[in-house]
Amino acid sequence: MVDPLDQMHPLPGMAASPILTSAHKIAIAGLGLIGGSLARRLVQRGRFVVAWNHTDKPYEAAQAAGIHTVDSLEELALGKPDVLVLATPLKAMPDMLSRLAPVLPKVTTLTDVGSVKGQVRAQATQAGLAGQYVGAHPMTGSEFSGYAASDPDLFEDALWALCVDEQTDMSRFLTVADMVTQGVGDRFICLDDATHDRSAALISHMPHVVATALAGMLSASPERQVAAALAAGSWRDMTRVALTDPQRTEAMVLEDAANVASDLRQLSSTLSQVAGHLEEVSLVNSTAQASPSAEIPPGKALGQLREFFAAAQPFRNYKAAQQSQVPRQQAAVVNLQLSDEGWRDELKASALQGQQVVRFLTTHQAQVSPALSW
Amino acid sequence: MVDPLDQMHPLPGMAASPILTSAHKIAIAGLGLIGGSLARRLVQRGRFVVAWNHTDKPYEAAQAAGIHTVDSLEELALGKPDVLVLATPLKAMPDMLSRLAPVLPKVTTLTDVGSVKGQVRAQATQAGLAGQYVGAHPMTGSEFSGYAASDPDLFEDALWALCVDEQTDMSRFLTVADMVTQGVGDRFICLDDATHDRSAALISHMPHVVATALAGMLSASPERQVAAALAAGSWRDMTRVALTDPQRTEAMVLEDAANVASDLRQLSSTLSQVAGHLEEVSLVNSTAQASPSAEIPPGKALGQLREFFAAAQPFRNYKAAQQSQVPRQQAAVVNLQLSDEGWRDELKASALQGQQVVRFLTTHQAQVSPALSW
Repeated sequence: MVDPLDQMHPLPGMAASPILTSAHKIAIAGLGLIGGSLARRLVQRGRFVVAWNHTDKPYEAAQAAGIHTVDSLEELALGKPDVLVLATPLKAMPDMLSRLAPVLPKVTTLTDVGSVKGQVRAQATQAGLAGQYVGAHPMTGSEFSGYAASDPDLFEDALWALCVDEQTDMSRFLTVADMVTQGVGDRFICLDDATHDRSAALISHMPHVVATALAGMLSASPERQVAAALAAGSWRDMTRVALTDPQRTEAMVLEDAANVASDLRQLSSTLSQVAGHLEEVSLVNSTAQASPSAEIPPGKALGQLREFFAAAQPFRNYKAAQQSQVPRQQAAVVNLQLSDEGWRDELKASALQGQQVVRFLTTHQAQVSPALSW
Repeated sequence: MVDPLDQMHPLPGMAASPILTSAHKIAIAGLGLIGGSLARRLVQRGRFVVAWNHTDKPYEAAQAAGIHTVDSLEELALGKPDVLVLATPLKAMPDMLSRLAPVLPKVTTLTDVGSVKGQVRAQATQAGLAGQYVGAHPMTGSEFSGYAASDPDLFEDALWALCVDEQTDMSRFLTVADMVTQGVGDRFICLDDATHDRSAALISHMPHVVATALAGMLSASPERQVAAALAAGSWRDMTRVALTDPQRTEAMVLEDAANVASDLRQLSSTLSQVAGHLEEVSLVNSTAQASPSAEIPPGKALGQLREFFAAAQPFRNYKAAQQSQVPRQQAAVVNLQLSDEGWRDELKASALQGQQVVRFLTTHQAQVSPALSW
């Protein structure tokens, strides 16, 4: 017997109210820092939330916060939620997915909050759940963990990445988008997994390795007491993320290994080029000191160093413009029209231009906050 | 005619009161952020300060703060100060030194506050002033510049590096030390120029290049809008110093070019090794995904990555211990005995152990704050 709820309602051919695809019953697997904060935030804003946690059961506190709780992962699925969010550690995903596969109703859209997206999609596909899956990654967190550290305000004005591939169902995508924009009150950008994972490597995973390498260099220096004594703000800033739990950092880096490796190769090559220019300058300097009357041309090295410093200028301009611009929350929104066939590419192009989706007006019309071009 | 004040008083053979070598009349060339703050701090604490500035003359404000002013660099020297501090930009040093050489009385000890020490000593030597020179570098500053931004509190509990070579006169060293400890109320460590310049490269100059390289990578990425949108605290911290004036950063790096180049080579090599380990892991991962039943040994790569993360552990421990220790200002001091011949090596060894000089009790006995061993 086929449960009629297991059939998705096809989207009407014309733009319809996004209410048709809204997410009101939300199941959350994992009541840690992120899952707990998300659950509390959704309840605060009027959504029905049912949650399950694997080991410790912070259920009394969760229930006091208005979160319904169940005793097993499977029960979450049996409740036929609009969305089931996997807020479990990345290494638990394969187990979660294989347990959900036989029981997850077709009506339910599956999402997650993992920090690497390609890997989770591959695991969902392996479990036979690709058709129901829309990847998500909220850009929020703190150095703490566990439900006790959860805080609905972690999601205040957060940006999410929602990840799609060519098979992603528009109706399911709109359901997750509704959870994010209307349920949580946040903004999102739509990406493919590869773009997400490359970007996360560049702005987070790779820099964690660099900070660790710097901290390792100081640790290994026989003059570390002197160098640490002389260290000021620049050193403190550059090594702060090396102080976070190295096992968590290592796991994060391993999950995005290929992208991090590629970024490290590029950075390594740039630093070694700069070293070459500086060696040339240093050689010219010491020759000049030995015979100060000799006119030694500084060669190309100085020009190449100037180019290196200039290459970061777009980022400096971007940060300066950010300081002076209207806060994104107050900026005027613009409308983005989406087509039945091209909606994924249209949303991804909008993200690459720096726009962020604030809400859907109809199933085929999004409001986006404008980009700061750079 | 030889001015009797041009003769230094030899130190008594036995330990004497450091008052004999104290610095009461202090001349400061350069009333910018550092020179201005230092002058105001010294006046606040009862020293006689006479200052000169090259271009703009913030003399009205300086005089209101109790600083005496003169119209030329040469007048500073003619006043026969105990110490003359060059607080001018590094690039102005050769000019300052050649103008001072014919007029600086022998009684005056010459020091500076430049961020690179080997180069300034070489320039002082070239000007014939090596015998009167003791290098200094106060570890303080802000992102602002000029007398208007000066603030005596910049020197509150600051650490100075005082730099010596085999020729440095003990009496002159004690005079600069008196200015730093009793005059300014700060601590210092005694280093040779090479150790100072290597340490400054490691904890400041080289990290500035790394931050700039990261900002350059993001600027060059076709996905920079996406990556910048996803960026959080780790990226902000790692790139903050790339936002400071790139010309100032470039000048700083060029002045310490050989050390920065060497650190960059080492970092580049470490990052490229980590990239290699990650590439190996990534290859194993994708093979495992293709045939999940095959048991593939993770090889040495995982172990090497673990070693990489562990290599930063001493720094994590040091920072954790710093959090929990008694503030250095309140820590009990220990006495350090200095010999006539070995005082330089004794002070340098103390710095390498992590001790910091708080004051001199006699010319041959220093009080040092104890080290945090790591």
